[in-house]
Amino acid sequence: MQEISIGLLGLGTIGSGVYKLLQEHEEELEFQLGSKLVIKKILINDINKKRMIDGRKIPSKLLTNNPKEIFDNDEIQVVIEVIGGVENAKNYMIKALEAGKSVVTANKDVIAKHGVYLSELATKNSCDLFYEASVAGGIPIIRSLTEGLASDKITRIMGIVNGTTNYILTKMTYDNMSYKDALKQAQDLGFAEPDPTSDVDGLDAARKMVILSSLGFSMPITLSDVYTRGIGKVEKEDISYSDNLGYTIKLVGFADIVKGKVEVSVQPTLLPKDHPLASVNNENNAVYLYGEAVGETMFFGPGAGAMPTATAIVSDVITVGKRLKLDVSGKHMINFKNERTIKSEEEIWAKFYLRLNVKDEVGVLNDITTVFAKEKLSFESVLQKPTKNPKDASLIIVTHKVVLKSYIKALKKLKELETINCIKSSYRVFCD
Amino acid sequence: MQEISIGLLGLGTIGSGVYKLLQEHEEELEFQLGSKLVIKKILINDINKKRMIDGRKIPSKLLTNNPKEIFDNDEIQVVIEVIGGVENAKNYMIKALEAGKSVVTANKDVIAKHGVYLSELATKNSCDLFYEASVAGGIPIIRSLTEGLASDKITRIMGIVNGTTNYILTKMTYDNMSYKDALKQAQDLGFAEPDPTSDVDGLDAARKMVILSSLGFSMPITLSDVYTRGIGKVEKEDISYSDNLGYTIKLVGFADIVKGKVEVSVQPTLLPKDHPLASVNNENNAVYLYGEAVGETMFFGPGAGAMPTATAIVSDVITVGKRLKLDVSGKHMINFKNERTIKSEEEIWAKFYLRLNVKDEVGVLNDITTVFAKEKLSFESVLQKPTKNPKDASLIIVTHKVVLKSYIKALKKLKELETINCIKSSYRVFCD
Repeated sequence: MQEISIGLLGLGTIGSGVYKLLQEHEEELEFQLGSKLVIKKILINDINKKRMIDGRKIPSKLLTNNPKEIFDNDEIQVVIEVIGGVENAKNYMIKALEAGKSVVTANKDVIAKHGVYLSELATKNSCDLFYEASVAGGIPIIRSLTEGLASDKITRIMGIVNGTTNYILTKMTYDNMSYKDALKQAQDLGFAEPDPTSDVDGLDAARKMVILSSLGFSMPITLSDVYTRGIGKVEKEDISYSDNLGYTIKLVGFADIVKGKVEVSVQPTLLPKDHPLASVNNENNAVYLYGEAVGETMFFGPGAGAMPTATAIVSDVITVGKRLKLDVSGKHMINFKNERTIKSEEEIWAKFYLRLNVKDEVGVLNDITTVFAKEKLSFESVLQKPTKNPKDASLIIVTHKVVLKSYIKALKKLKELETINCIKSSYRVFCD
Repeated sequence: MQEISIGLLGLGTIGSGVYKLLQEHEEELEFQLGSKLVIKKILINDINKKRMIDGRKIPSKLLTNNPKEIFDNDEIQVVIEVIGGVENAKNYMIKALEAGKSVVTANKDVIAKHGVYLSELATKNSCDLFYEASVAGGIPIIRSLTEGLASDKITRIMGIVNGTTNYILTKMTYDNMSYKDALKQAQDLGFAEPDPTSDVDGLDAARKMVILSSLGFSMPITLSDVYTRGIGKVEKEDISYSDNLGYTIKLVGFADIVKGKVEVSVQPTLLPKDHPLASVNNENNAVYLYGEAVGETMFFGPGAGAMPTATAIVSDVITVGKRLKLDVSGKHMINFKNERTIKSEEEIWAKFYLRLNVKDEVGVLNDITTVFAKEKLSFESVLQKPTKNPKDASLIIVTHKVVLKSYIKALKKLKELETINCIKSSYRVFCD
């Protein structure tokens, strides 16, 4: 095999990054692989738009707006999907796999939703499907999870896997910015989309946790299994009270498995300041793993960005290329060993942070402890602070480790108490 | 292939860890690989010693003190070397490879010294040689370097790759311990050997940097290329002055490549406190990479310990097993692309920290600046502190980025100055 021929779907920032890496490292890649990696066709929308990368024009014969020129081209062995979105991208991947072409993608949306189906389709057609770039772009975490720690039993996966929200929370924490200002700055710097919904609502992180937990626990987790809550309601007060209590608020993806039962969530979480993830700041990502044998490991790096993502894609292309040359495409893909088994609210134990606006009256705290005691919940710490209104007070409570279901019940009852004006916020607190 | 048969050389803590993992995860491993992994023979010294793992006796038919029972056994396809040491281990690996058996090892000493030869021998005999466990036991760093970031150009590798010295420096930094007490504690806790020489002198870290830089820069680096200095002379004063200046002292393995020329060193280094490696404490290891495309990534985890190391070994065994089943053993091993090209002292630029004991007289600082100016060196900061002897003073200097050769020359001249009693310490300061 002198050449491995590639069809590239999409030429946005990531597609351009892939093109650039393949051009710039042409020689090294050929040396590594023993074959040239050659882009044969690039699928784009607007065929008339002039395409420049690093001041050089992309040869127009490479460009096409007709997908058939890729899927019906027998020469093309590998398809790189970087158009994004769900439906089109998924359909293109299906077409590629059905045509016997291996697929490399950065598309977390499609993999989180259709990964199981696509993997099976790949195996059926003796093709590979690789998606290292779909989670934490610059960090080879999927490779580490599926190969490097293959002999260990991973029992916990925690991740800061969304750069936008981590950037916003970092600015709120260290530069005392409001949520609104931090989001604006993230948008100005290109760390947040004009419509930031899927990032700030936690959906993007949830998709990545679906991918990581499915692989880590060898179980087909779905997006609906992930309890997901965004950062839109995190207030500066919560950040500063958390700080006083020794915690940093991060949007944490959390997945653990206990006696075969899994919990996966994405939510603003109070992390103890000495937790390795607590110092992962700005737009950086990190994935923390706990394995029975290996103990704690953490992988840190850029979560997104055109070049980190392109690096992960090209690494996957090299792997696919090697497997093509070894004639083993489609073999040894991942099969799930365990049936999907999700913890109920009775089986989830955690600590919680709770901020209440209460009437500054005698007996308020007693009302609250009565409610908590009935649900067998207890406090680790309580902090009372004055508010602007002299008739009211803020109560900040951190619970001991409690059952989620009981905590939810207690919250409902608190709402009914006359002495409580409102529940300002309630977040999970990480504990072992 | 129903079974993959293994010969295990050595049954110390790591060997026992491997045995335990293979037993405990028997089913999962078979599921992953599609074949059983079976230990056929274990080479030990004392055949009469009773061997228990987790309260269960190891079947005596597995044990042998005759290496031939492994190397002449045609059934055995994979040899795991965990006896340690150099000569015996190397010879066993050669015998295994010559007999067509793939080798998995944790032996950094042998790989750093004979890795190139052994890799070639493996390829010649259509075998694999894998050694993930040789660097930073629990962190899949070799896999990340050779596969995950394969399409990037790695330009810098920094590592805290020795747990013993990191433990000692952490205790000196945070618990104000003396070097001696910290070493004693490390020995009591099993983080340091009774003879800690190869750890505290930096040799162990240097071997790991040989392995990492050879792979990262695709160049056959040798141990003699690594400037190596241990932590034995680091004093508490240096740690506290560094702290004042915003730095943490760590034993840092540093390797970079600039215009095709490489520098590799292991030495106590002042790291800015906000560098990702600065907060890697206790016996933990971490490897920091800089790639042109990916930017900064860091891999953090346990550097040693029986189970983390055993995890890495078993992961390699799985990879070897898959390659055996795919009939590709010995193919696509690493070849070095670049010739060994090492920077001279004129080509190394760095900042330095210097602590002098000087006579507390008028004109001392002028003497020093004169020497420095002649070598075109300049200061970033100077700190003068009183000493116990009122006639003397401590001068703490941090230079700007300077040429190593000029700095060495200046040091020599400083020694000749009458106003300088002695050079207490001189360390490299990390800068970009």
